[in-house]
Amino acid sequence: MAGPLSQDQLDEIYAFAIDLGRKAGKLLMERVELRISGANGSSNTFEEKENAVDIVTQTDEDVEVFIRSALESRYPSHKFLGEEAYAKGQSRDYLIDEQPTWCIDPLDGTVNYTHIFPMFCVSIGFIVQHKPVIGVIYAPFTDQLWSSCTGRGAWLNETRRLPLLHNPTPPMPANAPSQCIFSCEWGKDRRDIPDGNMQRKIESFVNMAAEVGSRNGRGGMVHGMRSLGSATLDLAYVAMGSFDIWWEGGCWEWDIAAGAAILLEAGGLMTTANPPEDVDTAPIEDVRLGSRLYLAIRPAGPSPTETGRETQERTVREVWRRVRNLDYSRPGA
Amino acid sequence: MAGPLSQDQLDEIYAFAIDLGRKAGKLLMERVELRISGANGSSNTFEEKENAVDIVTQTDEDVEVFIRSALESRYPSHKFLGEEAYAKGQSRDYLIDEQPTWCIDPLDGTVNYTHIFPMFCVSIGFIVQHKPVIGVIYAPFTDQLWSSCTGRGAWLNETRRLPLLHNPTPPMPANAPSQCIFSCEWGKDRRDIPDGNMQRKIESFVNMAAEVGSRNGRGGMVHGMRSLGSATLDLAYVAMGSFDIWWEGGCWEWDIAAGAAILLEAGGLMTTANPPEDVDTAPIEDVRLGSRLYLAIRPAGPSPTETGRETQERTVREVWRRVRNLDYSRPGA
Repeated sequence: MAGPLSQDQLDEIYAFAIDLGRKAGKLLMERVELRISGANGSSNTFEEKENAVDIVTQTDEDVEVFIRSALESRYPSHKFLGEEAYAKGQSRDYLIDEQPTWCIDPLDGTVNYTHIFPMFCVSIGFIVQHKPVIGVIYAPFTDQLWSSCTGRGAWLNETRRLPLLHNPTPPMPANAPSQCIFSCEWGKDRRDIPDGNMQRKIESFVNMAAEVGSRNGRGGMVHGMRSLGSATLDLAYVAMGSFDIWWEGGCWEWDIAAGAAILLEAGGLMTTANPPEDVDTAPIEDVRLGSRLYLAIRPAGPSPTETGRETQERTVREVWRRVRNLDYSRPGA
Repeated sequence: MAGPLSQDQLDEIYAFAIDLGRKAGKLLMERVELRISGANGSSNTFEEKENAVDIVTQTDEDVEVFIRSALESRYPSHKFLGEEAYAKGQSRDYLIDEQPTWCIDPLDGTVNYTHIFPMFCVSIGFIVQHKPVIGVIYAPFTDQLWSSCTGRGAWLNETRRLPLLHNPTPPMPANAPSQCIFSCEWGKDRRDIPDGNMQRKIESFVNMAAEVGSRNGRGGMVHGMRSLGSATLDLAYVAMGSFDIWWEGGCWEWDIAAGAAILLEAGGLMTTANPPEDVDTAPIEDVRLGSRLYLAIRPAGPSPTETGRETQERTVREVWRRVRNLDYSRPGA
């Protein structure tokens, strides 16, 4: 049950969302095929990249309208929040409340889409009483679909249960973040100013990467550093257990609503990116969807001496010890 | 024609290599399925990650033996160089000569494989008179196959011609590296020593990422920074045109032989990562496969004022202006 909705109702909405995600992804691929075939005329010429921005904007808008229309005619009582509608609004105030609300991004990984790097996707999240209860992420180029519904588990392509290693699910490593894959993005804010977000990110990345013992004890020696260029897919891979840790600031609720639903249903943990004053004892609170500051830990099983949750919380604190506070806020908040 | 081999002979070898790549990839996936099903017993428990190293080593060896046996029985006169065989040898001297030589990596992206992040692949390159003439890369989790043969073009899944945008192929952007996706890897050398390879890489990454005008004119403001954790797949995506630039030091010829074949057949450029003394006028030479220092530029068509090659060479020089020399050499060389 998710608040006022029965499991039967949720199941019906879930099936509709999966079908909608696949159809929206197909629309994204149709535009890609037009570019590949050259049928869009001049847009592959010297000004291709500028035109590509228009292609993306137009695609974003068209796919959002498609998703919105489908949802409004099927579920007229539900609220709808989409990236494009937000971007055109007067403010970016946080608008999610108690009501059943769809929070969608018609195209996440827009830079990848422009360059036809397959890490782009449609993201459809359904939120009830502030909790993400259904998530659908579809990456059409490689035909990969991640989905979840409260009470029904999280899945890849509707057949592989998430996390992939669930029989049993391994705990977070005893010496995490060592042995972990750390997923992080350079983002769009590239101002090279002292103590700006880019410099804070780089310092955090280097701490996570550097050998143990270096950087005043902050060296994390993670197993791998990965940057895909899509917050939504980063979360999908954390839910799969492929990535162990994702740390990010600056993205919005439409980037993460579906991913958060899938991650939480798979058994992952999601809290804030910014370390509290006392990283050893501060309570580890569930993320606020609109906070723009996210730290996700993959699903984890018990170790001989800890519960799965304890291995996740230990990892959260080890990440907080190595990262800087990021400076992102909500306009008007 | 590739040296002593006719196009007919090459075509037959090409078909054999594609089939072999698919079969080897299937072996990689069978081991993944064993882990997912839990059929390997204890290896998903608390010591999972250590065991995973053994899983990878065993898989690497088994798949290399499979590929080597298939090639040696079909082409007994060809030389064979594989990562596993090299790693066990007395030295890592460069062993490729004029003879037809297979240069293969049974599993590239081993960290990804350990974590079941789908960016892992088998890589099969065929080299004649020092030129990579056939390349096959197969990523079995998402069933993506890249392949090429001299005279036959480069392909994704044997149906999509590479680069994807070839109708027409856009030039490199006029203000490259701006508007480019830059692919780079943190690698395994994480010693945090002044002027060590990790620090040189980080300085280079930040130069490429930072806004134009920053960092004493070195700010490149690339469109995106991507790290996949597989040199082979980085090259596959450059050949597709999805990534514009890949810059790396430290990998070996088995990591890049197949990717180089595919990139070059698609129209890409591959030269050295390390900037020469005069970046404005130094000749841009073809990469030496064994140099361990690689800079790849995607296929590019003409701009109104330049040939495609000229737009690529201009981009090479702009990258060289922003990156540091890396310190990798061959043992014994």
